Amino acid sequence: MIRPDNVVDLDSIWTRFRPVLEAELKYVVGRASLPLYDMMRYHMGWVDEAGRTLEGTAGKRLRPVLCLLACHALGGEWRQALPVAAAVELVHNFSLIHDDIQDSSTERRGRPTVWHIWGQPQAINVGDAMHALALSSLLRLEDTGTAHSKMVRAARILGEASLNLSEGQYRDISYESHLDIKVSDYLSMISGKTAALFSCSLEIGAIMATDNESDIYRMKSFGHSLGMTFQVHDDVLSIWGDERTTGKSSASDIRMKKKTLPVVYGLETATGSDAERLWGIYQKDILNPTDIKDVMQILDKLDARGYAQNMSKTYFNEALSDLNEVYIAQPEKAELEAVAAFLLDRKH
Amino acid sequence: MIRPDNVVDLDSIWTRFRPVLEAELKYVVGRASLPLYDMMRYHMGWVDEAGRTLEGTAGKRLRPVLCLLACHALGGEWRQALPVAAAVELVHNFSLIHDDIQDSSTERRGRPTVWHIWGQPQAINVGDAMHALALSSLLRLEDTGTAHSKMVRAARILGEASLNLSEGQYRDISYESHLDIKVSDYLSMISGKTAALFSCSLEIGAIMATDNESDIYRMKSFGHSLGMTFQVHDDVLSIWGDERTTGKSSASDIRMKKKTLPVVYGLETATGSDAERLWGIYQKDILNPTDIKDVMQILDKLDARGYAQNMSKTYFNEALSDLNEVYIAQPEKAELEAVAAFLLDRKH
Repeated sequence: MIRPDNVVDLDSIWTRFRPVLEAELKYVVGRASLPLYDMMRYHMGWVDEAGRTLEGTAGKRLRPVLCLLACHALGGEWRQALPVAAAVELVHNFSLIHDDIQDSSTERRGRPTVWHIWGQPQAINVGDAMHALALSSLLRLEDTGTAHSKMVRAARILGEASLNLSEGQYRDISYESHLDIKVSDYLSMISGKTAALFSCSLEIGAIMATDNESDIYRMKSFGHSLGMTFQVHDDVLSIWGDERTTGKSSASDIRMKKKTLPVVYGLETATGSDAERLWGIYQKDILNPTDIKDVMQILDKLDARGYAQNMSKTYFNEALSDLNEVYIAQPEKAELEAVAAFLLDRKH
Repeated sequence: MIRPDNVVDLDSIWTRFRPVLEAELKYVVGRASLPLYDMMRYHMGWVDEAGRTLEGTAGKRLRPVLCLLACHALGGEWRQALPVAAAVELVHNFSLIHDDIQDSSTERRGRPTVWHIWGQPQAINVGDAMHALALSSLLRLEDTGTAHSKMVRAARILGEASLNLSEGQYRDISYESHLDIKVSDYLSMISGKTAALFSCSLEIGAIMATDNESDIYRMKSFGHSLGMTFQVHDDVLSIWGDERTTGKSSASDIRMKKKTLPVVYGLETATGSDAERLWGIYQKDILNPTDIKDVMQILDKLDARGYAQNMSKTYFNEALSDLNEVYIAQPEKAELEAVAAFLLDRKH
């Protein structure tokens, strides 16, 4: 899988893990014929609104692929970790379904959101069912011969991650009505909202492979730093990304007054008339195009983009340093590094 | 605890289990100081909107008390089952928080609902966090020395119940826009929405006490029948209950066009002009007082109340017959029977 020049081919990683993972996910979500499950399949990208099979792209499945890679890198049989990798992806997706309701987002990945098609009450329910399915998925570890003690530990970690996710989401929603959010508040928020599930993916992947607590701890820490890298970079893309590759208007997160890192940094560090203007804009209920242009100008002036890029680079370096302390053979380490680099450099 | 004349004192059952159970619940929900947890504590009835401690009544905690009673009746140490009893109650309450959003209910137990105070986005999140906490609570079984294999089994049962709950909720929501709902559809719905969690409570309680699979199966079945009894009786109360004891207007479930058993029975069996009138009313968006009066009159004419009471009595008898096949000493059996009778006879 590694090219002679030691450059990792990312596609070969996706190709190795994704189809098997997707089959596992489809098995778990396909357990019943009730239309409730069609709504889940729609969200997962497998069928259209009418339940007709779709070809092609679902999500990137970053978290479960990282889980499987971690298991493989530490000498485990990654296929044994499939139930728990699928569980992590289901927790991620249940939270997206609820997130779309909470944000009133009508589109995700270029398709109408679940609530936008089937209404909020049913969408709340689809998310709840997927949350419950995540546990069912994890407990399929029993069929792969995993020890009960490891299953209990994996369930505990997944449950904690799910709770941290809600805590991060709590902060995110409550920040909407506050302007005095500091960068430290923002970091607490994404630590729960995003990093917790990355951290959980890598930790459980490691647990499935080894009993070496130090390696497990380092992998968990690697996952946390990766998640932070991912989210901060995501925030940069949400403002300065290319609309054609990100699939959403670059201004939309500013129009929705999202407390992304560049904005939080701007609110915290702007002074004089810039501060006045920025705080004034973020106190408005609805932003007009001039407001958005002004926000962009102030953020540019403060080099909020450079600040955020720098921060994602810092987390990336922390991730690599965590990884360096785990004993892994070179080809496997190179693969994990390649995925980490992808999180930092991706364009969408 | 049993009076000399062998009549069980229900209060003695509540007094024995509820305070210890409430302490367990408070411990699990009290894990962090984030306001998110205050919102959960508010819903559980322990604090007011401002976070000030409240005295007195929370919910009835029927499901966890039944779980503990089942464990005790089969010779188990009921205190060992506290984490899982609390987990069942948390699943029940997470579903109530989401239910109130789905139904746009502004009040529950005479107090504003979580979404009505903190908004829908945060209420979705409070429910999600409580769903995750249920698993954390269950996994505290490890501290009570429960074998990992039993913990895995309990987690599987709770996860399945949670999924069945969502399936029942799916049916409930989808029935709102349909008139051709049969009594059999209704029974599928409440089997998921209500009976699944009762069944889970009794099954897990039994598992904590015994390895006798036949007793476990009977207890599970007893729980299912109890849940059906409870829900059908609840439907009767929702239409013909005394407003002063139920705490909600008797007409509200009819005004909201809820597909309760008496209504489903009415829609299925009414003929001639009654059928025409009833179907006409249930096709309207908003019902006026005359509509509601007419519905009540048609239901009375069909003796829909007697039909429903008869059905809850039938499930009650099934419950007693399941219980009779479990080997339990008389005082403990009498207690379980007394709680079952309470579910059938309660006025609110």
